[in-house]
Amino acid sequence: MSNTAVSHPRPHVIIVGCGFGGLEAARAMRKSDVDITIIDRTNHHLFQPLLYQVATAGLPAPSIAAPTRFLFREQRNVTVLMGEVVDIDAAARSVYFENGDRLGYDHLIVASGATHGYFGNDHWAPFAPGLKTLEDAFDIRRRVLLAFEHAERETDELAREPWLTFAVIGAGPTGVEMAGTMAEIARHTLPNEFRRIDSRKARVLLVEGADRVLLAFPPSLSKRAEEQLTSLGVEVLTSHKVTRIDADGIGVLVNGVEQTLVCKTVVWAAGVSASPLGKLLAKTCALSDDHLDRTGRIRVEPDLSLENRPEISVVGDLALAKSFEKNGDTKPVPGVSPGAKQMGRVAAANILARIAGKPTQAFRYKDYGALATIGRKSAVVEAEFPVIGKVRFSGLSAWLFWLFVHVYFLIGFRNRLIVLMDWAWAYGSFNRTARVVTGTEKFEARSERKL
Amino acid sequence: MSNTAVSHPRPHVIIVGCGFGGLEAARAMRKSDVDITIIDRTNHHLFQPLLYQVATAGLPAPSIAAPTRFLFREQRNVTVLMGEVVDIDAAARSVYFENGDRLGYDHLIVASGATHGYFGNDHWAPFAPGLKTLEDAFDIRRRVLLAFEHAERETDELAREPWLTFAVIGAGPTGVEMAGTMAEIARHTLPNEFRRIDSRKARVLLVEGADRVLLAFPPSLSKRAEEQLTSLGVEVLTSHKVTRIDADGIGVLVNGVEQTLVCKTVVWAAGVSASPLGKLLAKTCALSDDHLDRTGRIRVEPDLSLENRPEISVVGDLALAKSFEKNGDTKPVPGVSPGAKQMGRVAAANILARIAGKPTQAFRYKDYGALATIGRKSAVVEAEFPVIGKVRFSGLSAWLFWLFVHVYFLIGFRNRLIVLMDWAWAYGSFNRTARVVTGTEKFEARSERKL
Repeated sequence: MSNTAVSHPRPHVIIVGCGFGGLEAARAMRKSDVDITIIDRTNHHLFQPLLYQVATAGLPAPSIAAPTRFLFREQRNVTVLMGEVVDIDAAARSVYFENGDRLGYDHLIVASGATHGYFGNDHWAPFAPGLKTLEDAFDIRRRVLLAFEHAERETDELAREPWLTFAVIGAGPTGVEMAGTMAEIARHTLPNEFRRIDSRKARVLLVEGADRVLLAFPPSLSKRAEEQLTSLGVEVLTSHKVTRIDADGIGVLVNGVEQTLVCKTVVWAAGVSASPLGKLLAKTCALSDDHLDRTGRIRVEPDLSLENRPEISVVGDLALAKSFEKNGDTKPVPGVSPGAKQMGRVAAANILARIAGKPTQAFRYKDYGALATIGRKSAVVEAEFPVIGKVRFSGLSAWLFWLFVHVYFLIGFRNRLIVLMDWAWAYGSFNRTARVVTGTEKFEARSERKL
Repeated sequence: MSNTAVSHPRPHVIIVGCGFGGLEAARAMRKSDVDITIIDRTNHHLFQPLLYQVATAGLPAPSIAAPTRFLFREQRNVTVLMGEVVDIDAAARSVYFENGDRLGYDHLIVASGATHGYFGNDHWAPFAPGLKTLEDAFDIRRRVLLAFEHAERETDELAREPWLTFAVIGAGPTGVEMAGTMAEIARHTLPNEFRRIDSRKARVLLVEGADRVLLAFPPSLSKRAEEQLTSLGVEVLTSHKVTRIDADGIGVLVNGVEQTLVCKTVVWAAGVSASPLGKLLAKTCALSDDHLDRTGRIRVEPDLSLENRPEISVVGDLALAKSFEKNGDTKPVPGVSPGAKQMGRVAAANILARIAGKPTQAFRYKDYGALATIGRKSAVVEAEFPVIGKVRFSGLSAWLFWLFVHVYFLIGFRNRLIVLMDWAWAYGSFNRTARVVTGTEKFEARSERKL
């Protein structure tokens, strides 16, 4: 595919990545006189806030993943191409695909997001998968379900215990959701299904380096979350710094003392690492090293464009962006989906402003609050409501609020309906029906050690 | 796991494989004074008649795969173990797992089924996946969806065509279902979603060596099926014998003349090959070679046990069984789910008879007819009804009958309800929502050739 074969008489906007930021940017230009090409490595837009439900067998993948083409079928100025952008040439205004194909742009929005990061300990990855893509979710689902299968086959009590010990590292919203749901599975979903083991005796450890869970929330809500986790059966281990992860478990530093948590199944929910396109952009735009932060995010101008390259914008988790408040202050932007969506809309508006020869606007993040679910009927919410102002609440009301918000924002009518039905059924029956494990590779690979 | 660690004071029945045959055998012994161990390589029972719906993105996997443990949670005499049986020792009455673990039995039912077979041409497998497991279905779904993605990225008209040509080899029920549904996807689901290609121009070829489709049906229904396929846009190529499959397409022999069908996506629905446990059984039971047929099925006694080994029974697709008719005739048993289920029930009854010191019964297959769906509103049915007798019909009424039968036999209430909703939605909107492609490996591997 050469760029010359497809001509763009109107300004051509390339959007790399179709997460929340890329999707909103394209939608914001739906009535504009531009040609948009969205390039994504996958064929679907993923509703990441519910990814933990796929990892814990509560929802099948199609409930939270809508085909990107389907979402844009009515928006005729959008062309969707599935592929991976491996290089960007800012001077030639071109992106390059994995097979060498080149595609030229007039304006570029890079929204390729972030993946999980191990703070330089990439050798931990095989033992502690993170949760960013559907494949990650399938991998975790497989490990969790197969651990119980291994335990049922194991007849030696002592050898069984590590299979029935699960650790989640990092007590942010994802870690809290994962740990709470895994405890529910052990205590409520599985008990009748095994004959040799008692799944209720499974231990779920939530390992956190800081001294409380949900650091981004106020301490009062952290306390409520910790109580709810404990009542679900999760062992909350705060002030436990992870120093080692291998096939036998986790090494932690507690009050300066090294300890080992013996377990076979570990989930990583502790760190993120920005898309490698950040580094590529810094290089092709000749930006100094201090434009990249420790996790690989790239610093953007107030209007989300890059320094000296107004035709390139970066949005979402890849952008090291600031919110420019009305009072002249600046604030960091949290790495949550409303942040990415708002950046996508502003980047699109600024491109249209440039095309029209008008000035661009600085980004301002509207903070609607934060929420995290913990398990059946438990959640914590800190939200900004019109008129009432900021409100904090937890428990059942918070869970219902969380449910409403997530189903409301799910993209596509069918998904909302089916997801609600899946949940209603899971809620009534305690069953989790998306327990399909495919691929026996993992089972065999792990059983090479003494089963 | 050593056998001594788990003692069985009651007769211990091992069932290898939890398809239709194994499932029914276990259920038939639900009130019996035996201990049952079900061993399966996967953690789920698969409703194979709807597997083509997963392969064509109509249903998510959990809709047709129920966790085996969940199905037996109330049947307390059943223990489910996930694992692979790699050897059987008839003299020691033991089976061996992939990790060397041994488990002893008093009675053994082998129900490990069949996979697709290439008539000795296993080198065709990478180019033409078959459809027996969920992984097969994901592989086919990935190939079909990615072919359209490749076509959209390809700007050279000539290079595009092979990506938009799909071939299904074998016009039995699975091949007919696959071809019909693929034509529907190209004509009805995708047209609005691409900008550079017209998905309606995609060709779907149904390649069959015999002179008509659906050989197991009467010729009048074959004719109706062919008409319905053609009206859906499928090119039906009967009397086309496949001689070669590679990355460029298929070689066929037509009236003695070699031809090549150029296409990138091929689905194999032409042959089956029995589980390797058939051969192992013949060896450990010292049965002569003529007990195995060409596809690896093993000949069973009238009561479904093996010659000289009454404690071993074989049921389902692995059994070369005969139906002993009331008039003294014998008939072959077709490889369909009712056959496997009926064999499972008879094998279980015969085990219970042996335990009670009573004579066993010969197997008799009750033929309720055959049905195959072709696509939206099209199907052919030949069914045996009480009072009315044998009836043949096709078209919408046959499709509704097919739908009713399949939803009725789907295991688990939640599945039935969700599957019906998924279908109602797909039917109303023409959309197919389970279009998740995971794994970029295939996309990249295939794009190494000129995209």
